[in-house]
Amino acid sequence: MTYCVGLKLNAGLVLLSDTRTNAGLDNIACYRKMFFFEEPGDRAIVVMTAGSLSVTQTTLARLSEAIHDEMADETTSIMKALTMLQVATIIGDTLSRTRREIAEQCRDLRQQASASMIVAGQRAGGDMRMFLIYPEGNFIEATEDTPFLQIGEHKYGKPILDRVVTPATSLADAQKAVLLSMDSTLRSNLSVGMPLDMAIIEAGACAVTTRRRILDGDADFARMSVAWSNALRDSFVKVTI
Amino acid sequence: MTYCVGLKLNAGLVLLSDTRTNAGLDNIACYRKMFFFEEPGDRAIVVMTAGSLSVTQTTLARLSEAIHDEMADETTSIMKALTMLQVATIIGDTLSRTRREIAEQCRDLRQQASASMIVAGQRAGGDMRMFLIYPEGNFIEATEDTPFLQIGEHKYGKPILDRVVTPATSLADAQKAVLLSMDSTLRSNLSVGMPLDMAIIEAGACAVTTRRRILDGDADFARMSVAWSNALRDSFVKVTI
Repeated sequence: MTYCVGLKLNAGLVLLSDTRTNAGLDNIACYRKMFFFEEPGDRAIVVMTAGSLSVTQTTLARLSEAIHDEMADETTSIMKALTMLQVATIIGDTLSRTRREIAEQCRDLRQQASASMIVAGQRAGGDMRMFLIYPEGNFIEATEDTPFLQIGEHKYGKPILDRVVTPATSLADAQKAVLLSMDSTLRSNLSVGMPLDMAIIEAGACAVTTRRRILDGDADFARMSVAWSNALRDSFVKVTI
Repeated sequence: MTYCVGLKLNAGLVLLSDTRTNAGLDNIACYRKMFFFEEPGDRAIVVMTAGSLSVTQTTLARLSEAIHDEMADETTSIMKALTMLQVATIIGDTLSRTRREIAEQCRDLRQQASASMIVAGQRAGGDMRMFLIYPEGNFIEATEDTPFLQIGEHKYGKPILDRVVTPATSLADAQKAVLLSMDSTLRSNLSVGMPLDMAIIEAGACAVTTRRRILDGDADFARMSVAWSNALRDSFVKVTI
């Protein structure tokens, strides 16, 4: 399982992913699920992935291959695409084609091979945009009304986002919100696990302005997690029925 | 969809269910999902249901029919069963048989007809017990380590239970915990809805000691919900990263 969350705020894009991958419960591994495609000042794109590792890895390998292809143009390379919408379209098409091929290979196993992605970024001259790309290649976009998108195990971490995130949320509060959302998910689902990857693309920068890997045992994250637990328990005591 | 939760505490059993039933998103109705089988002083049994309404209603109708059958004995009537384990077995068998029959009828629709139940209660001379009965009729039981069981849309409301519920939790705190757990679920999933049904079986009473229907617009519940939202937002501000 996986949990990835992205916020699209007036101040920038804030993205967080876990790194746990499992095939069953007895085969657990650590794989990065956040990928960067960046040419500072021109474009900054972050892709987060959930689902079958063979689908996501092959999709990303094909996206990279297309970038390095000498014949690539704006319709095949996300580093040449003219808009974030075109980036989302290229990724959606690649994901959809890869998923169909692998699902066909796995048909006899009666196993689902599927994946979804969050694509967030900004292209010079364009707005920041963030998309959730479905396994079929179609996508939806974060808006003023719903400024966050989630993939993977999204339910445990949604209540806190519903309550505190608006487009006006500051980058500092946004980092806190996604980390607390992840903290709830880590507590409730064993198949979501440390370390975490966080990235921030500040509005107008066209660059990934913050990249941070939060390791298991990270003192700040542990302190925040304990403080949040204590605050929740205190709140619970205070509220009366 | 549905959300039902039960706590098994040293002080008693605390049970809460919603009442929303939907067939698709455009056909929403209100159905009770909490059912009482009681002979005060001898036995108190509460059944909560989730899943296909045709399966749960038929299962309950058959359980009632068996109770009123003159030939009924301790192996067929939950009002004659000698232990709560026997009650769970009768309900599991009835649910499993009903589900198989209805699934067979629905085969051409390629639709899942399934259901699960929480069965909680006490029989004079026995301990309080609480079971989660799976669609196949097998079941698990709440224990000291995991004193709560949930069916239906369980994820949104689990983090608060994980944090505050232990077997030593008081009945007052337990009511608050299940109501806050329901509140998180109501906010995040439209297919879980008011009114709510709450029941308490105090330890040793062998009777349903509290029954309460909480209607939409209930002042106490609304006040608690707002207080909890405010407390969460305050906690969010206080916690630092």
